[in-house]
Amino acid sequence: MSKKYVYLFSEGDASMKNLLGGKGANLAEMTKLGFPVPQGFTVTTEACTRYYSDGKVISGEIITEIDDKLSQLEGIVGKKFGDPQNPLLVSVRSGARASMPGMMDTILNLGLNDTVVEGLAKLTGNPRFAYDSYRRFIQMFSDVVMEVPKSNFERIIDEIKEHKGITNDTDLSAEDLKAMVARFKDYYHGQKGSDFPQEPKEQLIEAVKAVFRSWDNPRANVYRRMNDIPSDWGTAVNIQAMVFGNTGDDSGTGVAFTRNPSTGEKALYGEFLINAQGEDVVAGIRTPQKIAQLQEVMPEVYDQFIEIAGKLEQHYRDMQDMEFTIENKKLYMLQTRNGKRTAQAAIKIAVDLVGEGMISKEQAVLNVDPKQLDALLHPTFSAQALKEATVLATGLAASPGAGSGKVYFTAEDAVKAAQGGEKVILVRLETSPEDIEGMDAASGILTARGGMTSHAAVVARGMGRCCVAGCGDIRVSEEDKCFTVGDKCFAEGSYISIDGSTGHVYEGCVETIKAELTGDFGKFMAWADEIRTLKVRANADVPRDAQAAMDFGAEGIGLCRTEHMFFEEDRIPVVREMIVAKSLEQRQKALDKLLPIQRKDFEGLFTAMNGLPVTIRLLDPPLHEFLPTADEDVKALSIEMGISFEELKATVEDLHEFNPMLGHRGCRLAVTYPEIAAMQARAIIEAAINVTKSGVTIIPEIMIPLVGEVKELQYVKDVVTKTVDGIIAAAGVEMTYLVGTMIEVPRAALTADKIAEEAEFFSFGTNDLTQMTYGFSRDDAGKFLDYYYQKKIFESDPFARLDQTGVGKLMAMAAQMGRTTRPDIKLGICGEHGGDPSSVEFCHSLGLNYVSCSPYRVPIARLAAAQAKIKADRAGK
Amino acid sequence: MSKKYVYLFSEGDASMKNLLGGKGANLAEMTKLGFPVPQGFTVTTEACTRYYSDGKVISGEIITEIDDKLSQLEGIVGKKFGDPQNPLLVSVRSGARASMPGMMDTILNLGLNDTVVEGLAKLTGNPRFAYDSYRRFIQMFSDVVMEVPKSNFERIIDEIKEHKGITNDTDLSAEDLKAMVARFKDYYHGQKGSDFPQEPKEQLIEAVKAVFRSWDNPRANVYRRMNDIPSDWGTAVNIQAMVFGNTGDDSGTGVAFTRNPSTGEKALYGEFLINAQGEDVVAGIRTPQKIAQLQEVMPEVYDQFIEIAGKLEQHYRDMQDMEFTIENKKLYMLQTRNGKRTAQAAIKIAVDLVGEGMISKEQAVLNVDPKQLDALLHPTFSAQALKEATVLATGLAASPGAGSGKVYFTAEDAVKAAQGGEKVILVRLETSPEDIEGMDAASGILTARGGMTSHAAVVARGMGRCCVAGCGDIRVSEEDKCFTVGDKCFAEGSYISIDGSTGHVYEGCVETIKAELTGDFGKFMAWADEIRTLKVRANADVPRDAQAAMDFGAEGIGLCRTEHMFFEEDRIPVVREMIVAKSLEQRQKALDKLLPIQRKDFEGLFTAMNGLPVTIRLLDPPLHEFLPTADEDVKALSIEMGISFEELKATVEDLHEFNPMLGHRGCRLAVTYPEIAAMQARAIIEAAINVTKSGVTIIPEIMIPLVGEVKELQYVKDVVTKTVDGIIAAAGVEMTYLVGTMIEVPRAALTADKIAEEAEFFSFGTNDLTQMTYGFSRDDAGKFLDYYYQKKIFESDPFARLDQTGVGKLMAMAAQMGRTTRPDIKLGICGEHGGDPSSVEFCHSLGLNYVSCSPYRVPIARLAAAQAKIKADRAGK
Repeated sequence: MSKKYVYLFSEGDASMKNLLGGKGANLAEMTKLGFPVPQGFTVTTEACTRYYSDGKVISGEIITEIDDKLSQLEGIVGKKFGDPQNPLLVSVRSGARASMPGMMDTILNLGLNDTVVEGLAKLTGNPRFAYDSYRRFIQMFSDVVMEVPKSNFERIIDEIKEHKGITNDTDLSAEDLKAMVARFKDYYHGQKGSDFPQEPKEQLIEAVKAVFRSWDNPRANVYRRMNDIPSDWGTAVNIQAMVFGNTGDDSGTGVAFTRNPSTGEKALYGEFLINAQGEDVVAGIRTPQKIAQLQEVMPEVYDQFIEIAGKLEQHYRDMQDMEFTIENKKLYMLQTRNGKRTAQAAIKIAVDLVGEGMISKEQAVLNVDPKQLDALLHPTFSAQALKEATVLATGLAASPGAGSGKVYFTAEDAVKAAQGGEKVILVRLETSPEDIEGMDAASGILTARGGMTSHAAVVARGMGRCCVAGCGDIRVSEEDKCFTVGDKCFAEGSYISIDGSTGHVYEGCVETIKAELTGDFGKFMAWADEIRTLKVRANADVPRDAQAAMDFGAEGIGLCRTEHMFFEEDRIPVVREMIVAKSLEQRQKALDKLLPIQRKDFEGLFTAMNGLPVTIRLLDPPLHEFLPTADEDVKALSIEMGISFEELKATVEDLHEFNPMLGHRGCRLAVTYPEIAAMQARAIIEAAINVTKSGVTIIPEIMIPLVGEVKELQYVKDVVTKTVDGIIAAAGVEMTYLVGTMIEVPRAALTADKIAEEAEFFSFGTNDLTQMTYGFSRDDAGKFLDYYYQKKIFESDPFARLDQTGVGKLMAMAAQMGRTTRPDIKLGICGEHGGDPSSVEFCHSLGLNYVSCSPYRVPIARLAAAQAKIKADRAGK
Repeated sequence: MSKKYVYLFSEGDASMKNLLGGKGANLAEMTKLGFPVPQGFTVTTEACTRYYSDGKVISGEIITEIDDKLSQLEGIVGKKFGDPQNPLLVSVRSGARASMPGMMDTILNLGLNDTVVEGLAKLTGNPRFAYDSYRRFIQMFSDVVMEVPKSNFERIIDEIKEHKGITNDTDLSAEDLKAMVARFKDYYHGQKGSDFPQEPKEQLIEAVKAVFRSWDNPRANVYRRMNDIPSDWGTAVNIQAMVFGNTGDDSGTGVAFTRNPSTGEKALYGEFLINAQGEDVVAGIRTPQKIAQLQEVMPEVYDQFIEIAGKLEQHYRDMQDMEFTIENKKLYMLQTRNGKRTAQAAIKIAVDLVGEGMISKEQAVLNVDPKQLDALLHPTFSAQALKEATVLATGLAASPGAGSGKVYFTAEDAVKAAQGGEKVILVRLETSPEDIEGMDAASGILTARGGMTSHAAVVARGMGRCCVAGCGDIRVSEEDKCFTVGDKCFAEGSYISIDGSTGHVYEGCVETIKAELTGDFGKFMAWADEIRTLKVRANADVPRDAQAAMDFGAEGIGLCRTEHMFFEEDRIPVVREMIVAKSLEQRQKALDKLLPIQRKDFEGLFTAMNGLPVTIRLLDPPLHEFLPTADEDVKALSIEMGISFEELKATVEDLHEFNPMLGHRGCRLAVTYPEIAAMQARAIIEAAINVTKSGVTIIPEIMIPLVGEVKELQYVKDVVTKTVDGIIAAAGVEMTYLVGTMIEVPRAALTADKIAEEAEFFSFGTNDLTQMTYGFSRDDAGKFLDYYYQKKIFESDPFARLDQTGVGKLMAMAAQMGRTTRPDIKLGICGEHGGDPSSVEFCHSLGLNYVSCSPYRVPIARLAAAQAKIKADRAGK
């Protein structure tokens, strides 16, 4: 039997999400449950994959299947596609396996043409509705299928409205709309050189192809990369009989959530528009009414919707996000799905659902996306600062959190400014999917138009960016790159602050404070901690970071980078003195000055961590990083240091490297200058002994970086242990310490059995390991990685998400070989991947003892570790 | 039973080389065969290893064993150690498993002190001999054991001789020598602050320790690194009863080879000195007599020696290098070993021994060190150039081959100049082991003193460096850094040319021609070719190199680097035009200009290779390599290109990379600029089609560099095949071609199973693979590798000798996984390791199809491949 590519809604169910996409599977499920769903059929994700493998064509076989299902649909709804007497109109919507809001394009009212529109007008006795539907169709079809931008049509609408002296679309008459259709078609002809397609079946197939194509558009690719969705999943296409929210005041359309997606509060939450089609709500063009008002407008419809919403949440055991349309007082459900929510809401809903007996603690832990926690961990405005701040304007509190920065008015400008190191607030009339990279680059988003379910609001919540939407107080001129409030003008580069939890916009930079993590968050994280077996440590170099890490639940420090201490202002002169030293004696003199400073650093760290493990890495970067290179800087420094310019310049030139990444750094420094390693080891142990006196037990972990060969490690370890054992013996104390290594050079992983003979622990340095395994440096890869994403060679950034295939294979080898030599070897990871959920899951699967990440990512790693445990248990691993 | 650390000569045999060292095992073997060997005992290599593992002390247990054997030796020879009445004197010599000529230090006449010397004088009635022996002992013991340089003693000798108005040591009287001993002891006391050791047993143990220490001296380490000898082998120590060549005119000492080590000619070859001790011959202080003259001086001794030499060669089935001493007309054999020989001699001897029925062809192939062939493959002076050249001076033809360069007078200066890219001739009074690095850096070596078996001659032959030794015509002043011939002075930096095959020294730079490889060489290489299964290709970019490769027996081109073509003067302007192009159109225009040039390059290559396989790699280096960086150069180029300085500067800055090694290069260029790959693919295939018309079948192999992910390869391969298939179809010809990849990024090796789905061949690029696996770049590693050698972290340069443990593991994985996916995948190596014998052996063990190396290394690889096959067969693999 050949593969089936098209399914009627009545042929599927919720379990078929991979094949039918999320939307299609849920439409089938709602059909099965007997809810009022306009019927239709789904072209599968496999048809999409085949479209691409066939070279971007839809095979005749699939077209025949679509025709068949269309005939069956005509039978079900009793209308005929393209028949002016009783026309079947359809919507064409994308629907991937994972929800990709705003990413894929939708076409409504397909099946209309010059004769069908007349028939529809006659049949409904509502020519205004018929032409409104037709002009919408022309607009959407042209935009999505034929690449004639929607905004050009909007301009025509504006011209007509101006000419007529009206402001609302609803004030346009049937005749106006008919004229508009004529102008749209003219415009189309002018753009494309051919008439607007009149053949409904051709419209349909072209629309299906457009949905398939849209799977591969740049913003879909960016979204997938941000959300780890493989490009070979493909999207399904849902073709559904149209119901109309734009037939008059007995009709409407809306979006609602079973619980508040912003706070998690258990209460129906949503918006609707009377006499409108679905896209109007989402696009935020008209500001909609609250869902509760539907009770006054159409009480019966409201009651029915409340009942359905309750049943859906009960059925899916999660908060639902639903779209509906009311056609002449009859309710139709167009979609349901597990709703996107803020981190705060996600946790409250998860905790509440456990309290309501709906789900288990494990399920609650699984229901929250770890990446979302980021939003909870970011700062809010301090109460003190707020007292003094001036509220400029207020909009909708669309995505919580506080942010401040310089305003930019295009996504492109925002991205550029952020890359230049600026904090950015992206200000837009309204956002569209094209803006997604700009939104990601911004600290916050402010829009003048759109509601709580507008594009800006939905995407910002998903990203954990704060957002104030629909802020009617401001007038945005994207062209002039400024916005005005009253008569005050804010040009590009002006500072503002926005509070996505209150909707307030402030002038200037308002001081922020860090998040308090209590209540539901504490309860929820305690569940995660109970479940997980993987420990979570933090990368922290100074006591302040160590304290933040402890606050976020870190169970130790996995990486203290001692070079960060070397860069501080009070010691860099001594470090430079050490570097320019011409003899061991001179160098030792400088090191003797550094010793008490380093010791104090470590005392602070040990004190802050209060007995939790602390892994300290010996000096790693090449020495030239501590010296300037530009002649004027070298000159200035030479004067400061009291040596000749020529001498200092010679040192700088001597230290120059062609590939610093692959240069004289890591343990290679300790091999050439063992006295540096000895000084650091001394500082660590003396600090540990001093802090131990206060009654805390400390087991320092001394980590030797960039080892590629066991004899390197042997040599440096020997320097360390000789120094340390001498100090311990002289102090007459008992002190245990560990000496281990980073696994960050491929050869270390490949020879891990031998390296484990010397190393008491391994810490995977996946930043460097990724660079060397791929053979590209992070600093240089920017120049070509965009091409790699465009051409789908890479689907995610290997520096953000661990490459399990290549780098992961080295890690697995190293873990296995290391344990063979030393069964109790401690294994951890301290690359940035330590805070990435999918990478954490991989680390769990390797049986690592801990992951270490930046303090702010500690809760994310804790949750990801718990999810990894649950998933592994469920998979029987 | 505890381990035995000391063996009498009568307890060992030749098979115990690993334990007794080469010298010790052969002394034992000669003892077993009944030859006249002064008896003694050997302290094993394991005692040396233990000395180091015990922290550089000799354990009491070993000292006791030495004492025991010494007593036994006293019994055997009927003399007593330290007994003035009948003293036993001994020599202490090092002897490692592999012969390390000149590397280890020797002490003669040990056991002498102020009373024993008197006894010896009385006993022999020859006070001159006794004091000569004692002064030699003081000199050697001070130098080797106590670190009081020998040259300081030589200065005292010179003073005494000058004072007495004599020139030859032999003219010194007993009284002179007695006075000399007194001055030596005074000098010693002045240097060390204590008396010269008088206790023979203390002398002995200190001497043994000194031999052990000398195993770890810098020049021994350098030699080991150059010859791949592991430092954990250790050296044995041979303690042998002294016989004396310095008792008068009935005594003497000499060195001889059973065949000519320079030409391989079957005739006894050697030198001797009357009334001398062994070191005199080797050190080249007096110019010795030819061995044939011994027949006149002592016919019976000569006949006996001839007989023994014949028997030894027959026994060892190889040319022997023997040391002997004649004491009062009695012959003693002090050493025999397989003799070092020139490449030419090695081949002649191997071929002759097969002809004489002494060894098999396999053994002949094994007997020649592949690295030695290098010497045969280097140029000689052209006859034409010689006609016009002026012979400055003539010395001994110590090591064949021709070389020219600037003269330098210290090893250090020679190394520096060579690193700066200069061709260097090292000129020395005589060389010593300290000079070894300078000799290695030089194109040739010229010494004023010393014979054919002097240090300079022996070492130069081993290295394949040409050498003219004992050139009395020149007067060298190392201090003033010049030499004079007559009244002509040659200062540092002057050009000379030397011919190590004739002994001539020429003024200026004499033109050289390449070697002719015929006769024995052809026969010998044919045996190697019959045996080996691994193919040998060459890395060649231009027809000239391809021709050289064919002449050396290459079976194809394994790597043609197309970028080298881009750098040539007539095309770099077009390449730059391509780089600064602002649009695809502009770039395409430049590529269109490059196409015919590239096509012509490839036509030349295909024509030269006449149907043998040719692997062509697409553009690899980052584009900035084609542009200047210094402002003045950029300015000049901008004028030349007719664009503004600012524009060109901006391009240069835009292309700047932090780590070019890990940057935008290899297939990453083809991903961003597929049009470049398309142009190159077109040029290759059009060239192949054109050359095919002449009747040659060509199967081009297109190689895509720096692949780390199969999708990269897929993408670029797709660009290539689309281009190529179109051309082939349009031309209406049949043409097969292969598309494959370099395996040079660790991730490629780790995912080789997937990469083999697309790649029809793998070529291991072990230069880059080594850099990335170790995480250091070749350009930068120089700064720390010396420390790594010093500290024994590395024993060989991983860029010269393949790291089988780490890099090799990746290769083995890739080969195995690649074959799993594609059983008939073609596997080769094109890194520089392809010409390194040990690496070739490893490639054979992986079952690679071919190695590819520089044309001059092709014969080396052919021989190494044959040896690998024989060794694997013998090991039953």
